[in-house]
Amino acid sequence: MLPRGRPRAMGVAVLLLLLLLVIGFFLFGRDPEYGLGTTATLDGDLYGSRNLSASSPQLLLPPKCEVMLHVAVVCAGYNSSREIVTLMKSVLFYRKNPLHLHLITDAIARNILETLFRTWMVPAVVVSFYDAEELKPLVSWIPNKHYSGLYGLMKLVLPSILPLSLARVIVLDTDVTFSSDIVELWAFFGHFSDKQVVGLVENQSDWYLGNLWKNHRPWPALGRGFNTGVILLWLDRLQQTGWEQVWKLTAKRELLTQTATSLADQDIFNAVIKEHPELVHPLPCVWNVQLSDHTLAERCYLEAADLKVIHWNSPKKLQVKNKHAEFFRSLHLTFLGYDGKLLRREPFGCPNHFPPGAEQLQQALAQLDEEEPCFEFRQQQLTVHRVHITFLSYQPPPPQPHDVTLVAQLSMDRLQMLEALCRHWPGPMSLALYLTDAEAQQFLHFVDMSPVLSVRKDVAYHVVYRDGPLYPVNQLRNVALAQALTPYVFLSDIDFLPAYSLYDYLRASIEQLELGGRRKAALVVPAFETLHYRFSFPKSKAELLTLLDAGSLHTFRYHEWPQGHASTDYSRWREAQAPYRVQWSAHYEPYVVVPRDCPRYDPRFVGFGWNKVAHIIELDAQEYEFLVLPEAFSIHLPHAPSLDISRFRSSPTYRDCLQALKEEFHQDLSRRYGSAALKYLTALQLSRSRA
Amino acid sequence: MLPRGRPRAMGVAVLLLLLLLVIGFFLFGRDPEYGLGTTATLDGDLYGSRNLSASSPQLLLPPKCEVMLHVAVVCAGYNSSREIVTLMKSVLFYRKNPLHLHLITDAIARNILETLFRTWMVPAVVVSFYDAEELKPLVSWIPNKHYSGLYGLMKLVLPSILPLSLARVIVLDTDVTFSSDIVELWAFFGHFSDKQVVGLVENQSDWYLGNLWKNHRPWPALGRGFNTGVILLWLDRLQQTGWEQVWKLTAKRELLTQTATSLADQDIFNAVIKEHPELVHPLPCVWNVQLSDHTLAERCYLEAADLKVIHWNSPKKLQVKNKHAEFFRSLHLTFLGYDGKLLRREPFGCPNHFPPGAEQLQQALAQLDEEEPCFEFRQQQLTVHRVHITFLSYQPPPPQPHDVTLVAQLSMDRLQMLEALCRHWPGPMSLALYLTDAEAQQFLHFVDMSPVLSVRKDVAYHVVYRDGPLYPVNQLRNVALAQALTPYVFLSDIDFLPAYSLYDYLRASIEQLELGGRRKAALVVPAFETLHYRFSFPKSKAELLTLLDAGSLHTFRYHEWPQGHASTDYSRWREAQAPYRVQWSAHYEPYVVVPRDCPRYDPRFVGFGWNKVAHIIELDAQEYEFLVLPEAFSIHLPHAPSLDISRFRSSPTYRDCLQALKEEFHQDLSRRYGSAALKYLTALQLSRSRA
Repeated sequence: MLPRGRPRAMGVAVLLLLLLLVIGFFLFGRDPEYGLGTTATLDGDLYGSRNLSASSPQLLLPPKCEVMLHVAVVCAGYNSSREIVTLMKSVLFYRKNPLHLHLITDAIARNILETLFRTWMVPAVVVSFYDAEELKPLVSWIPNKHYSGLYGLMKLVLPSILPLSLARVIVLDTDVTFSSDIVELWAFFGHFSDKQVVGLVENQSDWYLGNLWKNHRPWPALGRGFNTGVILLWLDRLQQTGWEQVWKLTAKRELLTQTATSLADQDIFNAVIKEHPELVHPLPCVWNVQLSDHTLAERCYLEAADLKVIHWNSPKKLQVKNKHAEFFRSLHLTFLGYDGKLLRREPFGCPNHFPPGAEQLQQALAQLDEEEPCFEFRQQQLTVHRVHITFLSYQPPPPQPHDVTLVAQLSMDRLQMLEALCRHWPGPMSLALYLTDAEAQQFLHFVDMSPVLSVRKDVAYHVVYRDGPLYPVNQLRNVALAQALTPYVFLSDIDFLPAYSLYDYLRASIEQLELGGRRKAALVVPAFETLHYRFSFPKSKAELLTLLDAGSLHTFRYHEWPQGHASTDYSRWREAQAPYRVQWSAHYEPYVVVPRDCPRYDPRFVGFGWNKVAHIIELDAQEYEFLVLPEAFSIHLPHAPSLDISRFRSSPTYRDCLQALKEEFHQDLSRRYGSAALKYLTALQLSRSRA
Repeated sequence: MLPRGRPRAMGVAVLLLLLLLVIGFFLFGRDPEYGLGTTATLDGDLYGSRNLSASSPQLLLPPKCEVMLHVAVVCAGYNSSREIVTLMKSVLFYRKNPLHLHLITDAIARNILETLFRTWMVPAVVVSFYDAEELKPLVSWIPNKHYSGLYGLMKLVLPSILPLSLARVIVLDTDVTFSSDIVELWAFFGHFSDKQVVGLVENQSDWYLGNLWKNHRPWPALGRGFNTGVILLWLDRLQQTGWEQVWKLTAKRELLTQTATSLADQDIFNAVIKEHPELVHPLPCVWNVQLSDHTLAERCYLEAADLKVIHWNSPKKLQVKNKHAEFFRSLHLTFLGYDGKLLRREPFGCPNHFPPGAEQLQQALAQLDEEEPCFEFRQQQLTVHRVHITFLSYQPPPPQPHDVTLVAQLSMDRLQMLEALCRHWPGPMSLALYLTDAEAQQFLHFVDMSPVLSVRKDVAYHVVYRDGPLYPVNQLRNVALAQALTPYVFLSDIDFLPAYSLYDYLRASIEQLELGGRRKAALVVPAFETLHYRFSFPKSKAELLTLLDAGSLHTFRYHEWPQGHASTDYSRWREAQAPYRVQWSAHYEPYVVVPRDCPRYDPRFVGFGWNKVAHIIELDAQEYEFLVLPEAFSIHLPHAPSLDISRFRSSPTYRDCLQALKEEFHQDLSRRYGSAALKYLTALQLSRSRA
């Protein structure tokens, strides 16, 4: 058998070799340097006839689970921190590989994005932060007219901040949206020739041709030049080619005749490429479809089989006028409103890569018994909500020793309270909003449209993304509380409007009472309510008392639940000229001003009931004095009962679950405070035996 | 040159030929009949190693814009009508070709889906309906134990109802979700051998192996058999092979020993294939990943590069327990909550294929001036909202000559009113809900969880999908009104609770007043309001009057806007024993009972203001008598001001735009009613000059 077998095996081997050769020729024959798509210019015809572009790069895709793809993004400020989330959602939606994000951020973006990614808990995503401040001196000598400012230039100096061990990276602008798996873009590194160090798509406008208008003298570029919204950067080769010297020399020479860069890093990249065309690996146009006002992108996408990356490279962003803008907008809006929670999934068919904490969380959730009556409560308590702090532009208050931040939380159905609240409280606020991703966009629009809200930069809005059927009221309060930056906080609720003078009065009271020292105090702001939608807000305590006597105002929940505020002692308050101390009693839930480092709210209380009561008990257990302020007041406006209060009223199970939570709370209290906690339990049992 | 050139050209030609041959071998070499994936069994290894499965079928993709793909789905009842929407969203999200949907429906699904697709206005989608009733006799002789019932069997007889001109069709169950472009599935037709008529994925369970439990005797099948949730059906070849005779013979023979089918059509398809294996073209497993409880699908998807179609083929659907269920659920939830409006886009890079009316609408929208102050109003008026009528299971009321349907509209923030409303109104209701796609799912959950709502089958919920910043109140009312099936309608608002007796009293009044004849009447239900959240609802007119005198109740908007109900003449009502006629006066906006064919609401009024006033004018202009009913009443419950009313109060532009709408309304009124309409204009001018 052997003598006959061998030649046959040899023949098969030869055939296989031939086969490989021919396939190789078929795949890469167009470009001796494996540079598929090197002829991908606007006027050329290589916009990927459908089958070619779809198949060829895919044949070289790296294996799905093992290969980590590296992505670098420069991100600074509030707006870019929102943009990058949409970019990341689009990348994560299609990706099948682990990702390592390298984020070059200012302090604002870092603060936002660290919290966001920590709470997002996306499997198989690693995030590293780099301080953009360190890069500023490297580019600040370059005059730049582009709206991206200094940050726009930082892509030039990425090799000096990214780890040396990082050989290749995809660099993205925050204003791009993916419509495909990023691994297909990564695969183009496999097509680079030995000399190529940067992969770019041609610029889809005539800007660099210099014929747009009279006296338009752009930076030098090869033909139409290249766009730097999407870059493949071969970092170690860049180092070897002395990239830093190369681009600096070019920039300095050009700046002898140019006053500044117009398009930031892109002008310099193009000037370098004009001189060293061998450095660039041109990418097919669909990997950076540029949607500026007078874009030539149509020549690309009308021919192309598939859209890969959209680039909103006009300062107008989604408002850009463009024949097919509606189509592209719909792709972008897909991810703008996409529920980011759905991306907490491992890449398809890969073993689990859980981020810190996620595995324990999964296990804890898996151990819950779905048949247990309080399952929804247990599940809601365990839920880790994605949090986007300071969702909108924000100017932190200057440090002042007696300043107070109003802290509250709300969902979409209370947005209409914000304007009135801003009129009543001229000081800083920290508000947690419980929203879906889509609602967060509506909220953004709402603030933009409001002349009252859009000018207030001292209000910090923190978006906590919805997940689960019960309102996580105390988790929301804790997010808002943690983000308050003044030494004191006024822990309020969104349906209350404070007296117009309250902000000034509180600061004065804090100063007078010398709370700065060791004194542990909770200043009580007495609560009232009106039942009228339209209502003339009292300008003073005297006016308030008149309305109270006329029956137009009531003490808060006077009819339904007087216990909640009984300790405040409204009759004493009527006459009081100075702050007076009151004692805790069962069910007490006043609105208080406390130091920022006060105890957090107990997150086990979700939905309706006991969420503030437990916090006040905690304050009392920690020996805070309750001091009622004689001139302070706040008024509750009417609204329909919330879904949670309706469920509390209609469902015995809901009430039983709340009871169980209370009991667990008391057990924990005893554990922490020992016999000192006994009075709370006694009070609870007493009130129950009365009921 | 020629003598030297020719041989070279010949050489190139030979090389090319060789190249093509080798590529052909490479691509199709596994199967002489071009049947890529014919060996795709669960235990085999052809779960598509990544690059092969991703590239090969794509090389044969039909061109993107031209080729129309045909898809057939059997859909019956309310639940399937919701399921198919999610299926279609997933198909439309990825598709790049025009689609023709062939929907085999019962009357319920047809009613829902005709409205849905008409209002969805997706470009390049054609929908044809076929009456499932016609197919019933063809399959009703087959005993079937599967939960899909008779409809589950209809896939067998599709060739007899689909047009003869249709050569090929993809047949889908409603419980599948696409995760890829459907054209890739269509491309498998290109791999069929001459004899193959049906493309199927192997069944991903051991069901047909017959070893699942003792005495489990499944229908015969080839190995594990095939799953019929996704079928490629080559219709004209089926006809030629005498399909009808073939499957009937097989079914009849098997039914001699089997009592019934267990898995509907799937059992019969498998029995036929067992006998005629040459008919089936096996498809790669990723095109029908079956997620039942004990699925073997993991063997497929852990190896596969890419997921194509998920099949929720357990009666538990998304609640199925499965190791990777969370991953698959997130893909499904993506489309469940996806804003369907975003799919109103032409397929990528194709010329426009607009559905009827869409082009004019686009043009009208494009002609609006974004800088005009009332732009938002104009845009909102033109918006065509997607409408999903009877979103939940519904039992239409039996025909009764004096029956009344309560008609109202709401959004998410009023869901908590529904239970109380159901307690107060035991009759039929038609409610329009203004929701996002994600909110529609929350609403579904809300109703499921409510013991009060889930048992009420006489309430029809119509979802109108959100689009734009202003609440389209009158468009919503018109949707609810159009779907009311009783001869009379009570046009109410969601914040009102009717007297407990109102439903019976209205029916009796209609009968006594003999409204059935020519008499055109609007029966006025006097409106009151309470300012208390908790409130003991009066059981009778006498109780109501006591509360009114005690100041616990007021006539509706007594303080803010008495003109709205002045004509009702509350003092006369106190004493009235019989219905009395009242005259129209300016700003009159009572809640009325009218015949179902009453005039529609004017859709130009969006947001807050004048939406009911205009309708009452219309009734008056058409000479409806206003008759106040002496025992009828309805009470408004308190709620926070809506966003729209807040905008009305705070924005002068908003008020100016409303004024402009009123004037246009009056112009139209004059055009239609001539001098008879003069009184409305005079009244308006008079009230303005007074203000």
